[in-house]
Amino acid sequence: MTCQPVPEDKFSFGLWTVGWQGRDPFGDATRRSLDPVESVHRLAELGAYGITFHDDDLIPFGSGDIAREAAVKRFRQALDATGLTVPMATTNLFTHPVFKDGAFTANDRDVRRYALRKTLRNIDLAAELGARTYVAWGGREGAESGAAKDVRAALDRMREAFDLLGQYVVEQGYDLRFAIEPKPNEPRGDILLPTVGHALAFIERLERPELYGVNPEVGHEQMAGLNVPHGIAQALWAGKLFHIDLNGQSGVKYDQDLRFGAGDLRAAFWLVDLLETAGYEGPRHFDFKPPRTEDLDGVWASAAGCMRTYLILKERAAAFRADPAVQEALCASRLDELARPTAPDGLAGLLADRTAYESFDVEAAAARGMAFEQLDQLAMDHLLRAR
Amino acid sequence: MTCQPVPEDKFSFGLWTVGWQGRDPFGDATRRSLDPVESVHRLAELGAYGITFHDDDLIPFGSGDIAREAAVKRFRQALDATGLTVPMATTNLFTHPVFKDGAFTANDRDVRRYALRKTLRNIDLAAELGARTYVAWGGREGAESGAAKDVRAALDRMREAFDLLGQYVVEQGYDLRFAIEPKPNEPRGDILLPTVGHALAFIERLERPELYGVNPEVGHEQMAGLNVPHGIAQALWAGKLFHIDLNGQSGVKYDQDLRFGAGDLRAAFWLVDLLETAGYEGPRHFDFKPPRTEDLDGVWASAAGCMRTYLILKERAAAFRADPAVQEALCASRLDELARPTAPDGLAGLLADRTAYESFDVEAAAARGMAFEQLDQLAMDHLLRAR
Amino acid sequence: MTCQPVPEDKFSFGLWTVGWQGRDPFGDATRRSLDPVESVHRLAELGAYGITFHDDDLIPFGSGDIAREAAVKRFRQALDATGLTVPMATTNLFTHPVFKDGAFTANDRDVRRYALRKTLRNIDLAAELGARTYVAWGGREGAESGAAKDVRAALDRMREAFDLLGQYVVEQGYDLRFAIEPKPNEPRGDILLPTVGHALAFIERLERPELYGVNPEVGHEQMAGLNVPHGIAQALWAGKLFHIDLNGQSGVKYDQDLRFGAGDLRAAFWLVDLLETAGYEGPRHFDFKPPRTEDLDGVWASAAGCMRTYLILKERAAAFRADPAVQEALCASRLDELARPTAPDGLAGLLADRTAYESFDVEAAAARGMAFEQLDQLAMDHLLRAR
Amino acid sequence: MTCQPVPEDKFSFGLWTVGWQGRDPFGDATRRSLDPVESVHRLAELGAYGITFHDDDLIPFGSGDIAREAAVKRFRQALDATGLTVPMATTNLFTHPVFKDGAFTANDRDVRRYALRKTLRNIDLAAELGARTYVAWGGREGAESGAAKDVRAALDRMREAFDLLGQYVVEQGYDLRFAIEPKPNEPRGDILLPTVGHALAFIERLERPELYGVNPEVGHEQMAGLNVPHGIAQALWAGKLFHIDLNGQSGVKYDQDLRFGAGDLRAAFWLVDLLETAGYEGPRHFDFKPPRTEDLDGVWASAAGCMRTYLILKERAAAFRADPAVQEALCASRLDELARPTAPDGLAGLLADRTAYESFDVEAAAARGMAFEQLDQLAMDHLLRAR
Repeated sequence: MTCQPVPEDKFSFGLWTVGWQGRDPFGDATRRSLDPVESVHRLAELGAYGITFHDDDLIPFGSGDIAREAAVKRFRQALDATGLTVPMATTNLFTHPVFKDGAFTANDRDVRRYALRKTLRNIDLAAELGARTYVAWGGREGAESGAAKDVRAALDRMREAFDLLGQYVVEQGYDLRFAIEPKPNEPRGDILLPTVGHALAFIERLERPELYGVNPEVGHEQMAGLNVPHGIAQALWAGKLFHIDLNGQSGVKYDQDLRFGAGDLRAAFWLVDLLETAGYEGPRHFDFKPPRTEDLDGVWASAAGCMRTYLILKERAAAFRADPAVQEALCASRLDELARPTAPDGLAGLLADRTAYESFDVEAAAARGMAFEQLDQLAMDHLLRAR
Repeated sequence: MTCQPVPEDKFSFGLWTVGWQGRDPFGDATRRSLDPVESVHRLAELGAYGITFHDDDLIPFGSGDIAREAAVKRFRQALDATGLTVPMATTNLFTHPVFKDGAFTANDRDVRRYALRKTLRNIDLAAELGARTYVAWGGREGAESGAAKDVRAALDRMREAFDLLGQYVVEQGYDLRFAIEPKPNEPRGDILLPTVGHALAFIERLERPELYGVNPEVGHEQMAGLNVPHGIAQALWAGKLFHIDLNGQSGVKYDQDLRFGAGDLRAAFWLVDLLETAGYEGPRHFDFKPPRTEDLDGVWASAAGCMRTYLILKERAAAFRADPAVQEALCASRLDELARPTAPDGLAGLLADRTAYESFDVEAAAARGMAFEQLDQLAMDHLLRAR
Repeated sequence: MTCQPVPEDKFSFGLWTVGWQGRDPFGDATRRSLDPVESVHRLAELGAYGITFHDDDLIPFGSGDIAREAAVKRFRQALDATGLTVPMATTNLFTHPVFKDGAFTANDRDVRRYALRKTLRNIDLAAELGARTYVAWGGREGAESGAAKDVRAALDRMREAFDLLGQYVVEQGYDLRFAIEPKPNEPRGDILLPTVGHALAFIERLERPELYGVNPEVGHEQMAGLNVPHGIAQALWAGKLFHIDLNGQSGVKYDQDLRFGAGDLRAAFWLVDLLETAGYEGPRHFDFKPPRTEDLDGVWASAAGCMRTYLILKERAAAFRADPAVQEALCASRLDELARPTAPDGLAGLLADRTAYESFDVEAAAARGMAFEQLDQLAMDHLLRAR
Repeated sequence: MTCQPVPEDKFSFGLWTVGWQGRDPFGDATRRSLDPVESVHRLAELGAYGITFHDDDLIPFGSGDIAREAAVKRFRQALDATGLTVPMATTNLFTHPVFKDGAFTANDRDVRRYALRKTLRNIDLAAELGARTYVAWGGREGAESGAAKDVRAALDRMREAFDLLGQYVVEQGYDLRFAIEPKPNEPRGDILLPTVGHALAFIERLERPELYGVNPEVGHEQMAGLNVPHGIAQALWAGKLFHIDLNGQSGVKYDQDLRFGAGDLRAAFWLVDLLETAGYEGPRHFDFKPPRTEDLDGVWASAAGCMRTYLILKERAAAFRADPAVQEALCASRLDELARPTAPDGLAGLLADRTAYESFDVEAAAARGMAFEQLDQLAMDHLLRAR
C-alpha cells in the first residue's frame, strides 16, 4: 500500500482551512496569515488536486477592482503552475457584522439583497475559474430566540434566494450546480436547514430542484448526534450528493473541524467505504481547522494527515469488501435479502400469500440471530489490520 | 382563563401512554395493565376528544378472531358512550422479537412481508374506526453497526413498503393519510429517517407523495438537539404537518417521554404559539409516559397536566401576540421586513439596483441592532405572566 | 411584586459580559469596545451591586505601569461614584496565543511560570479592590488529541499551581478564597476538571483545601447534559459553593452564554429556589454574552433581563414553597421522610430489625405511588403564575 | 501477536452481560435466559478469568434459603471446575418496582432500610466467594422533576448508607472495598453522582474514605460527552480507580452498552494505553449488552470480541510507546516538560525570577508550535498498523 496522495485521488482543500489563523471565541490568532498562492503550492506538493475558496479568502472584503483583479491573476497563475483545479467555490456570508442576523434570511431586506449580489458576483468568478459546484453554507441563517425569526417566512426568503441564484446560473449558461451545506447550530443558536434531511427536503420546493444538492459536512451531522454514513447514504439515494466536506468531530459539542479521521474513526471508515463503493465521483474535500496549538508545520502535517488517513481507510474498506469471510458474513446477516424487493409479486400477491401472515411462524423467525456482531468484529479486524 | 380542556381543544392520547406499565431497560413494571375501556372513560372525563392506538394495544398480539372482535366491540362501545373519537391509529412493529432488526427494512424478507401484512390489517381497523391519519414510526428500522444495514437498499425497501401501503389505501378508497414519525435513535443505535427533515425528503421520492406527511414528536427532535418549533415550521411550510406528538424531553439523552411542558418549557411555548397561529387543525396528540414512580392517580394527573399546560401556554401565546408592545417590538426587530419578498423586482431588477451592492452602506447596515433581546424578554414576561 | 433590582439583591456582572464585542468563530466584532467606567455606571443605574473583571478587561494586555495605574484609578473612581463593589476578580489565561496549550498545565514550563506570575499580579489587585473571591477558569487546560496531554502529570501541575496561589494568599494575609470554574470543553476539545464534581474532587488533594471552592456556571454544566441544580446542591452539600455564574444554555452544544432564564427555564427556576433556600450568601453573578445581533441598547436590555428574570423566579419559588397545597404535596411525595436518617438505630439496630427485611412487604411498598407528577404540575403552575 | 485471551489478562464479565435477554424499552426478550453455570463454562473457554454478579443474577429475587443455597453451590462448583474467580459483586437495587424512586436515597425510609439490608446480605456472599471489590451503581438514585428530590438531603442519606456499609465490612473483617459507579441519567432523568468527578468528591465526605473508590463505565462518561481516558486518569491520580467497566457507546444518547471498541475506538485506544501504563492491576471488566439482534452465538462472539479488541489495542499502544519516532515526537510536544515541576524553586523563587514574567518574551513563546498533529497522526498510524 502507498498512502502518498495523487491528483487522481481528488483531494481538495479550502483556502480557509490551512489558512485558518486560530482565532476562536476565547483567543486571538496564533498563526500568521497565509498567502493563497503559498497554499496552492504547498497543497500541490502534498498531492492535492483541488483548492476551493470563499470570495473573501481570495479577495479581502472591500477590495477595489484593481486589487481584486490582481489577486485573481496571481491565484490563477499559481493554479496554472501547479495544475491544481478549482472544483468548488462559495460565498462568505457570515464574517462581516452586516450578516449578524443572516444573509438570505436576514430580517433586514437590504441585507438580503446585498447578500444575493455578493453571491452572484462570486458565482461569476467561480464559473470563470472552472468550478462545477457552488456551495452555500447558511451559517448565520437562524436565531437564538423564539420570536426573532418567523421560520416559515424565512424559508420563503431562502427559497426566493435559491431560485434567483438558479435562474442566474441558467441564464448565464454556467455549468454550475449548488450544494447546500447543513449545520444544526453555531454560530447561531439554531440554524435553518439543520441536517442533510432538512436540506434535501427544502430542495424539493425549489423551482429547479435538479440544480441543487447537498454538501454534507461530517462534523456538522455529528453535532446533532447523527450517523454520518447514514445521512450521506440518504443523500446518495436521493441523487443529491453533489459535494462533501470531510473532517473530524468528537460528538455533540462545539464545531471542532478536526482533521479527517480524528473524532469518530469508525464512522470515517464506513463513510470511506460508502463513498468508494457508491459511485461518488466528486472531490474528497477537507474542511477542517488545524488546531490553534499548531504552527505552520503542524498545519501542513494536519493537511497531509487528512489525505493519508483517507487512503488508509480506503485500502482497509477495499480489503474488507474483498474478503470471502466477509462476504459469507454478509450473507449470514442476510444483506443479500435486504437487496431483494419485498413484494416482487405486488400488493395483490402479498395479500394473497398466506405464508406471509396467516401461516407465518413468527416465533421461528424471531429466533434467528442476525450475526451482526461477528460481522462487525470482522470489520474491526480489517480496520485495524488485525487479520 | 379556564384551563379545563374540552373536546374542541382536540386533545388526544395514545392508549399506550396512560397504559404504560413502567417497564424500562433496568426495571420491571410498576403499574397494573389498564383496560382500554377504562382509559377511554377516564380520558373522556378529563376532557380529551380522541384516543389512538397501536394494533397490539387494543388487541393483544396473537389474539384469535373472536378475541379480536370482542376487543374491538368493547372499545367501540366505550367510544360511543363517551363521544371520544379515533383520529389516528398505528402499528406495533417493534415489541415482538421478530422485529428485532426492523420491519419494513428488516434484512429478513419474510419479516418485511409479515410487517406489511400486519400493517395492512390494522389499516382496515383504523379506517373502520374513522381514523384519518395512520402513523408509521419505524423505531426498529436502523442498525447498531456499520455493515449491518445497507442504507440505500433499506431506503429502497422503505419506499417499496410505503408505496404499497399508499396503493392499498387508494384502492380501498380509505380517507386516510400516512404520517411518518422520525426518531434519531433508541431503540436502535441509529434509526433511518432520523429527523423531520429526513422524513420530509424521503416522502418526495414516493409514488404518491401527497398521501404522506410527518408526525413529529417533540422529544424525538430534541434527542438530536434540534429546535422543535423550527422543525415543525418547516413541516408546515412544506404542507406536511399531518399529525403531532406532544411531550417533554430534557435535552440530548435517552427518550424520556415526559408530560408536555416538562423539559424545555420555552420550546413548548413557541411550539404552541406556532400551532395556534399557523392554522394546524389536527389533533394535539400527547405521546408521553407517566414516570414509573407514579401510581394510577399519578397517571391521570400527568395526563391532565399535559392538557392544562397546553392551555396555559396557548393563553400566554395569544396574549403575547395581542400585546401592542410586542407588535412594536416585532417591527423593531424587522419581522415585517422578513415577510416581504427580497426581490419583487426580479433578478434583473436586483442586478440593476446599485443601492443593493455598489452603493450599499455595509457598515451602516451592520451597525443596526436587531433588538431581539428586548423582544425575547417580552416573551419571557408573557410566558411567566409577569406583565 | 417589584422586579426592580437593588444592591441588596447582590447582582454582579463581569466587565467582559456587557463588554463582549460579538467576535465569534465565524464573525468579526459587531459592537464597539465599552469603557469599563461606562459599564460601571450603566450597571449601577440598572440596580447591580457588583462588578468583576479579568486583569486584561481592565488593563489591556501589555500595558505599562503608568497606563495600568491610570486604568485602575479611573475604575476605582467609578466604583466610588456609584457604590458598586468588586466581589470577585479573575485572570485571563486564554486569549493571548501564548496560552494556546494551557496556562497552569501548559506543556511549556515557562508558560506555566508566566501564567502563575500573571495570576499573582492580579491577585494583588483583586485584594486591593476588596474582592473576596478569586475565580480560576482553566479554559485552555486540556487537549484535542490523546497523547498531547499526560493528564496525571497535568493534574500534578494544576495542584502545584493552586498550592502556590494558596500559599501566596496566606502569606500576604489576603482575605481571599479561590473558586474553580469547571467546563467540559470549548475552547479545548476536552478541558481538565470538566464538571463541578471533578473540581470538587480535585480540591480535596490540595494542601489547603479550605481555601478552594467552586464557581459553577449554569451553561457549562448543561454543555455536559447535567442537571444544574443537582450539581450546585452537591457543591453546597460539600460546603464549596463559593461563587456562581448565572446564564442560559440550550442544551448540549457550543457555549452559548445566553442571558439568565433563556435556555432551560425550569432549571433556572429550581436553581433560584435552591440558592434562595440553601443559605447561599454570595453574589448572583451573571456571566453571559449579549448576542452579537444586539447593539448597546440590546446589551443593557439583556443585562436588565438577567436580573428581572431572577427576581421573577425568586418570587415564584417563594410562593411555591409557601403554598400549603405544595407542603401537602411534598409530604405526599415523602420529602419529609427523605430528611430523616435512615438508620438512627445504627448498624446493629438495622440488622436486628426484621421489619426492615425479613418481614418487609416489598410488593406493598412497591405499589405506593410517589405523587411526583402532581407535585411537579404544582411547580409548573407556580412558575407560570397559573394558580 | 496473539489475540487469544488468557486468565493473566484479567478479563472478567458480569453474568448480566452475556445473560441479557434483550428486553428494551420498546421490545420483549429475544433470547432465552442463560444458566449462570453455562455462562461460567463458556466464558472460561473463551479465556476469561473472572465472573461478577448482582445478587439477583445468581439467586432470583424472592428465592427462599434452600433455592439460594442450591444456586450458590452450583455456581461455586462451576467456578471450581473452570478456575474462574469472582473478583467483584454488586447488588441489584433497580429492577424491582420497590426501587422505583431509588434505594439508598429513596424518599421512602423503609425502602432505604430494605435496600441496605439487601446489600449487606449480598456483601456476605461476595466476601464468601472471595470478591475484593463491591460495586455500587445507584441507577435509581435520582429524579425526573425538580421538587421530587432534595438533593442535599439525598446526599446525606447516601453518605449514611455508605458509612453503614463501610462499618459493616470493617466489623466483619472483610477484605473488600467499595467502588461507586457513576452515571449521568437513565433510567432516572438525572442520577445523583453523575460522573467520575462527582463520585470522587462524594467519597471525600465519608467516614472511611480509604474504603471507597470508583468503578467508571466507559459509556456512562460518554453519555455526558466526557473524555473517558481523562476521567479515568483523574481517578488514578486520586488513587481511586478500584475497578473499571469496559464497553462501547456512540456519543451522547441512550445507554448503549456496546461491546468494547465499538463506539469511540480512539478513546478505547487511549484508555487501554492508560490502563496498561498507569499500573492499574484490577480486572478488565466488560459491562456490555450483546445487541438484541443476536442469538447466543452472537452473544459469545460479542464477548470474544471485547477481549480480542482489548488485546489488539494493548499491542498497538505498546508499539506506539516503544517507537523511537514517537518518543521524539513526545519531546517535540514537550511532554517531558509537563512532567517537570513548574516551580521547583518554590514561591519565592518564582516571584524573584524576572525571566518568568518581567523579561519573558511572550510573543516568542506564543509562536512555538506544539506539534500535536504530527504526534496524533503517529498514534493513528500505530492504531491502524499503517507504520
